[in-house]
Amino acid sequence: MTRAMLRRGATIHLIDVDDVPDDAVVCGIGAMGAPTVGVEKLPRGDEPLVALRALEAHTGARVTHLIAGEIGGTNAMQPLIQSAVSGLPAIDGDGMGRAFPELQHCTFSIAGLACTPAAIADCHHNSVVFPALRDTATLERFARAVTVQMGARAGYAFPLMSGVAMRRSAVAHSYPLAHAIGEAVLDAREKHHDPVAALLEASGGVVLLHGKVIDVERRLVAGFARGALRLSGMGDHAGEIMEIAFQNENLIAWKGRDREIVATVPDLISLVDEAAGEPVSTEIVRYGLRVVVVGIPAPAALTTPDALRVVGPAAFGYDVPFRPLPGRYGGRKLRVW
Amino acid sequence: MTRAMLRRGATIHLIDVDDVPDDAVVCGIGAMGAPTVGVEKLPRGDEPLVALRALEAHTGARVTHLIAGEIGGTNAMQPLIQSAVSGLPAIDGDGMGRAFPELQHCTFSIAGLACTPAAIADCHHNSVVFPALRDTATLERFARAVTVQMGARAGYAFPLMSGVAMRRSAVAHSYPLAHAIGEAVLDAREKHHDPVAALLEASGGVVLLHGKVIDVERRLVAGFARGALRLSGMGDHAGEIMEIAFQNENLIAWKGRDREIVATVPDLISLVDEAAGEPVSTEIVRYGLRVVVVGIPAPAALTTPDALRVVGPAAFGYDVPFRPLPGRYGGRKLRVW
Repeated sequence: MTRAMLRRGATIHLIDVDDVPDDAVVCGIGAMGAPTVGVEKLPRGDEPLVALRALEAHTGARVTHLIAGEIGGTNAMQPLIQSAVSGLPAIDGDGMGRAFPELQHCTFSIAGLACTPAAIADCHHNSVVFPALRDTATLERFARAVTVQMGARAGYAFPLMSGVAMRRSAVAHSYPLAHAIGEAVLDAREKHHDPVAALLEASGGVVLLHGKVIDVERRLVAGFARGALRLSGMGDHAGEIMEIAFQNENLIAWKGRDREIVATVPDLISLVDEAAGEPVSTEIVRYGLRVVVVGIPAPAALTTPDALRVVGPAAFGYDVPFRPLPGRYGGRKLRVW
Repeated sequence: MTRAMLRRGATIHLIDVDDVPDDAVVCGIGAMGAPTVGVEKLPRGDEPLVALRALEAHTGARVTHLIAGEIGGTNAMQPLIQSAVSGLPAIDGDGMGRAFPELQHCTFSIAGLACTPAAIADCHHNSVVFPALRDTATLERFARAVTVQMGARAGYAFPLMSGVAMRRSAVAHSYPLAHAIGEAVLDAREKHHDPVAALLEASGGVVLLHGKVIDVERRLVAGFARGALRLSGMGDHAGEIMEIAFQNENLIAWKGRDREIVATVPDLISLVDEAAGEPVSTEIVRYGLRVVVVGIPAPAALTTPDALRVVGPAAFGYDVPFRPLPGRYGGRKLRVW
């Protein structure tokens, strides 16, 4: 969608977090629902903007800047798409530094910003406003229940925040990092180098396993794609087995028959196609795929004690400690455009 | 709750539909959820008023009059309770002339009034506003999904309408009718007359069966109490069997082994305790109770072709025609206070 808009001559404004005025009216946007549904049900495209306009109509505020709720998956593109549609500038940053399955997993909520007023909207332009809820977990429950009724796909707009509050809470420079990773992979492919090695260098990631997917258990539960997958090692990892639990995103990776924990949220556990270095997300992973399981360290904002209460293993129901991966988010010194 | 408020000296204003100014700002109110849950989970009490205040804050309108979404069950009391709390007058009328399980079953929607803006609120004063939805069935689906997340109990406020629109769509004088039925039953009990006979005379109802409950199948599905019950006839009805399907309210009554339809929505199918003449609602009916199954004709507004599309048997998934009971709503000429 972003590419089609650019080809049609659209302009997308993406500006640095430091260039956002203190008194800007910033709004997080994105889409929520089950990625599994997104495979078949195409979005209308303007759902997050319709939610944002409902929020403006409700509050009387005029939003001046957009920011991604999460830099993962299609949600990374939402501020760019809606910037092209609305003319509002998007901010080079996001609320997760990765993707997470639930709304309360964002750095805006971890930093203590109020989640309401918030709004969601569907492809029929039905909109729902949440004027005042006790916390983001309640917003997640209420909005998720409506999202299921909307066909498991909705656009959201929240939180409304000042430029100052955004700078205090957002993960900055997530677009140059995503772009650098993509560039490194494409460049390696063109030069017939190993795209996975390029990905690791650009992202600061490590290889957790090189193997084949031998089992995928996937259920659509309460608007989420939940499940587990098992992999069997190949090459240097021959004889090893790995199990990964996911809820839209991969959460915990165990290795071996004694189920040694090798990586946990909030660190990123990512499956990539060994030949192309492309991500293999939870809605498309299937039996027989040959993949590299990559672990990438989380941004610092996600590994504080406050953050781990919200996005650590325990927050997802796993009674295991956070075991940080070596290295640092972004690998090499982050580039800023 | 109403009685407790009156004992504490509260004032409740109940006014005739004809005394409502044309340009009044009327709002329907009530509670939604599973009556089964209401048996254990007490309401805070102000949920419908909190929803109404959220609707006012969203629209900038000031509501001047309250009207019951339905005259059935505890929802008949909501405008009285909230009148005592807020000082706003309640209107002697309602949006169903009985009780129905879903929001779209109201005469306001049948008459074509817009269902949005609408709002719901829970006992924690979490509120949700629906600025613009395509129809009341969508409001029902969205609001019901949130209500389940609110613990299967929420207060609602919708629709917002003028005095003119209310008069065009509401069922008038439902409080004097409900009061006359209650008075007749209490009076009969005091004089050791048959309370069920008094109920029939006051309501215009007929006896469908006198019998014993021999089976109750009840499930809590998606925020509704759904199920079926079977009865075995006694006395004049010995040897007869009856089956009744319900969804919060009784919907269809069949008699005999060839399942002859004896009553259907929108006519009222009501179980009453044979000794006291008290209603036996779907959340308290149980094996072994001796009851009289009473059929009461629906108000005329519910039996038009337009209305039957919304509240006839087919609207609840039953492929049977509406078979009107003899008699008329309210039995004797309706009294107006």
